[in-house]
Amino acid sequence: MMKIDLNCDLGESFGAYKIGNDEEMMKYITSANIACGFHAGDPSIMRRTVRLALNHGVSIGAHPGLPDLYGFGRREISVTADEVYDLVVYQIGALQAFVTSEGGKMNHVKPHGALYNMCAVNQDLAESVAKAVYHVNPDLILFGLNNSTLIYEGEKVGLKTANEVFADRTYQSDGTLTPRSHPQALIESDEASINQVLQMIFEKKVTSIDQVEVPLHADTICLHGDGQHAVKFAKKITETLTSKEVVLTAYK
Amino acid sequence: MMKIDLNCDLGESFGAYKIGNDEEMMKYITSANIACGFHAGDPSIMRRTVRLALNHGVSIGAHPGLPDLYGFGRREISVTADEVYDLVVYQIGALQAFVTSEGGKMNHVKPHGALYNMCAVNQDLAESVAKAVYHVNPDLILFGLNNSTLIYEGEKVGLKTANEVFADRTYQSDGTLTPRSHPQALIESDEASINQVLQMIFEKKVTSIDQVEVPLHADTICLHGDGQHAVKFAKKITETLTSKEVVLTAYK
Amino acid sequence: MMKIDLNCDLGESFGAYKIGNDEEMMKYITSANIACGFHAGDPSIMRRTVRLALNHGVSIGAHPGLPDLYGFGRREISVTADEVYDLVVYQIGALQAFVTSEGGKMNHVKPHGALYNMCAVNQDLAESVAKAVYHVNPDLILFGLNNSTLIYEGEKVGLKTANEVFADRTYQSDGTLTPRSHPQALIESDEASINQVLQMIFEKKVTSIDQVEVPLHADTICLHGDGQHAVKFAKKITETLTSKEVVLTAYK
Amino acid sequence: MMKIDLNCDLGESFGAYKIGNDEEMMKYITSANIACGFHAGDPSIMRRTVRLALNHGVSIGAHPGLPDLYGFGRREISVTADEVYDLVVYQIGALQAFVTSEGGKMNHVKPHGALYNMCAVNQDLAESVAKAVYHVNPDLILFGLNNSTLIYEGEKVGLKTANEVFADRTYQSDGTLTPRSHPQALIESDEASINQVLQMIFEKKVTSIDQVEVPLHADTICLHGDGQHAVKFAKKITETLTSKEVVLTAYK
Repeated sequence: MMKIDLNCDLGESFGAYKIGNDEEMMKYITSANIACGFHAGDPSIMRRTVRLALNHGVSIGAHPGLPDLYGFGRREISVTADEVYDLVVYQIGALQAFVTSEGGKMNHVKPHGALYNMCAVNQDLAESVAKAVYHVNPDLILFGLNNSTLIYEGEKVGLKTANEVFADRTYQSDGTLTPRSHPQALIESDEASINQVLQMIFEKKVTSIDQVEVPLHADTICLHGDGQHAVKFAKKITETLTSKEVVLTAYK
Repeated sequence: MMKIDLNCDLGESFGAYKIGNDEEMMKYITSANIACGFHAGDPSIMRRTVRLALNHGVSIGAHPGLPDLYGFGRREISVTADEVYDLVVYQIGALQAFVTSEGGKMNHVKPHGALYNMCAVNQDLAESVAKAVYHVNPDLILFGLNNSTLIYEGEKVGLKTANEVFADRTYQSDGTLTPRSHPQALIESDEASINQVLQMIFEKKVTSIDQVEVPLHADTICLHGDGQHAVKFAKKITETLTSKEVVLTAYK
Repeated sequence: MMKIDLNCDLGESFGAYKIGNDEEMMKYITSANIACGFHAGDPSIMRRTVRLALNHGVSIGAHPGLPDLYGFGRREISVTADEVYDLVVYQIGALQAFVTSEGGKMNHVKPHGALYNMCAVNQDLAESVAKAVYHVNPDLILFGLNNSTLIYEGEKVGLKTANEVFADRTYQSDGTLTPRSHPQALIESDEASINQVLQMIFEKKVTSIDQVEVPLHADTICLHGDGQHAVKFAKKITETLTSKEVVLTAYK
Repeated sequence: MMKIDLNCDLGESFGAYKIGNDEEMMKYITSANIACGFHAGDPSIMRRTVRLALNHGVSIGAHPGLPDLYGFGRREISVTADEVYDLVVYQIGALQAFVTSEGGKMNHVKPHGALYNMCAVNQDLAESVAKAVYHVNPDLILFGLNNSTLIYEGEKVGLKTANEVFADRTYQSDGTLTPRSHPQALIESDEASINQVLQMIFEKKVTSIDQVEVPLHADTICLHGDGQHAVKFAKKITETLTSKEVVLTAYK
């Protein structure tokens, strides 16, 4: 029996500003990565999103980012390893309090945007994130790019980790994601995305843009939550996976 | 044997900006109220201040404020009760994570500045703060202005509370603090401050500015931590209290 | 020949967050109040909105607000008169630079949200706003609630002022807006809104919720720019006014 | 007759947080670079600093920085050229309004911290800054690291530029500053600093850390304004230069 986790970044609204289809996406996903107020989200959005996840039985994770609301956490900032440690501890704690106060339990942590990308390759920053998670709660699972430095540092520090793969991004022959600047970075058709997901789950590999079959292990698949198309694709992939007898369940 | 807690607002620096004499004040106080990043403080300052408190055996509390770094949390904002609930949960959680990751235990929560003053008289906001604290951790002690609405709401919700009094502020005959706009709001001389403290501890009353003796219960005394004079006064009052065989100990 | 100005608050997006139908609304309005980065807007949005207004021949005004992105400038903050002076100078200057660099000319200033409401009744704050505008550029026109303290203080300081009325808000018999907390605060039907506008323009009065005819002078009408309905109503009211031979033109 | 400008970064306080000795430094410098609220400074500080400069006859410049109060504008952020253009226009405009409202005239613009360093070597960002300055006011003078890309792009766009040198930083044989990570980056003794300044002014060269004499042109010398030592050094260098019949005057 195959099992897979479907995760999505949610709780990204801020004050009067709304982003995402959180209520709809909750119907299809098994893990929610909830923004913690630095790159997106605010205390009220956090409470509402935690409550929504609990109501849908969706597993909850903190989604800490760089302190850059204007840039939505997507711009690299030359942060030190100590700064990263501190901002991750802070954000996990903030979300943890909402989960506790709503009677739930936090399951995982996944860094956001530029922080995610920096930690995928920078050992010092990855170690800081891993230690921050471990010191706040060693039972938390660390989500990171499959086979990345973050996953490695997470395991080194003693955390359980989840290798994340992407449904709508292409891969290079060394197993890394094709950079967004590349014309073939994104998979446009739903069919191709779904085929890539099936290949990743059942064959444990992915075909790179230059046609190399790269072995890969997928614990959790990232779905996008923003835009008109997001909900439709979420529905389609859950139907396909269920029809193939893949069990959709939070990675725990 | 008389016991009293001496508390001080600390961790109020921000990035390159320094406020307060945290290292010196830690030598004299028994409880530290640590800013949580909304009106003052930042993740790195929070970690350092928590560590400093643990090294000095000083009891740790969260000091949540309104989101107003520019105004240092001293300006009233027309927040709703829900907003207050959410911003208190958020900030307690953030500090909690630093305390946990440093191997300590959080003891109390004291709202800051305008939030403190609003909760002293506004029942809805006071109830929000009390519930936020209780839902995050019912073992936390709620610090509030002695005999205020916040203390009342804290007890109603089931929290242990600490009545806070001020060494260098005068009182009115109804037991409230003389507003800062009043020319006699502040007690200028150390001797008068110390006498007021002794009166509050040993006689359980305070003489108001219009010479009425007002009964009052003091669980904890607030010392100011900023300015050249702060450390000297802290030293003087601890010496005086110790010489009178008052035991200085965190309120627990 | 009757003339009227139609104004709308625009440029309220922020970073990845989008609010409003700026491109559509520009087709119908004659004056744009552009957010300046304190309650909404950011430098890039400001440049784009200024450019958009210039392309549509829409008159440009600064729309300064309280520093509260989270609350969208709608929450009162206990600011001092000096603080208000300074934050209005700052924001007018920031927008002015975009208008200059794009080759345009700024025409007016209209405070936003809570600042607008506070200045409508508080003389000190109104005087601060009026002086800030006058000191930066005495040729700017000050937009304010018709017959309010802000209009009065603007004239006192020597500014040209524009009395603003609302298409979809009801009035009380003393000429003030019905507070939003009142069940009849908003006019729901387009027809009733348009009738109120026609009454205000042609009869120079408005019928209050308790059926008193209140004299009133309208220099500019505020249209809302957010929500699905906004663009449709803007189209409808411009068609109606044009059909009545009212000339839609910026107030200058 | 030799002439030189002495500039200093001022107005870097924020709300309750104080940095720098602005009142003292104003007595010695000829140009003030005033923070504009993104990396430091706030509207009230800006007004006070502008007023202070006008009272002392000190020439006024805008000191725009990256939007990072926490990092004091010293951390690189992966901003685009468009973002830089917009944030520079915004900040110049904000300061311009204070200068205008106080009856003064802005003279120059000098980018701050990480933005200064990025523009010293990155042509796209340097071009953005130069164009932003030029489009807001082509009469403004652009201050940049002597002989840097920023100076070059400023001249290309048609701005007058000022080559800035540092009194207390060492240089490398290629004419660039020794990075702060290098043990000899800073000149510790006042005497050595003053000798370097005299060499730069009178001999139009500087001796690099590896003893190469590098030709260099100094239009303006940067003095630091923070710390106990700053004011003493400012006094000492102005006395020395005056005694050598160097005229201290704003670069115009």
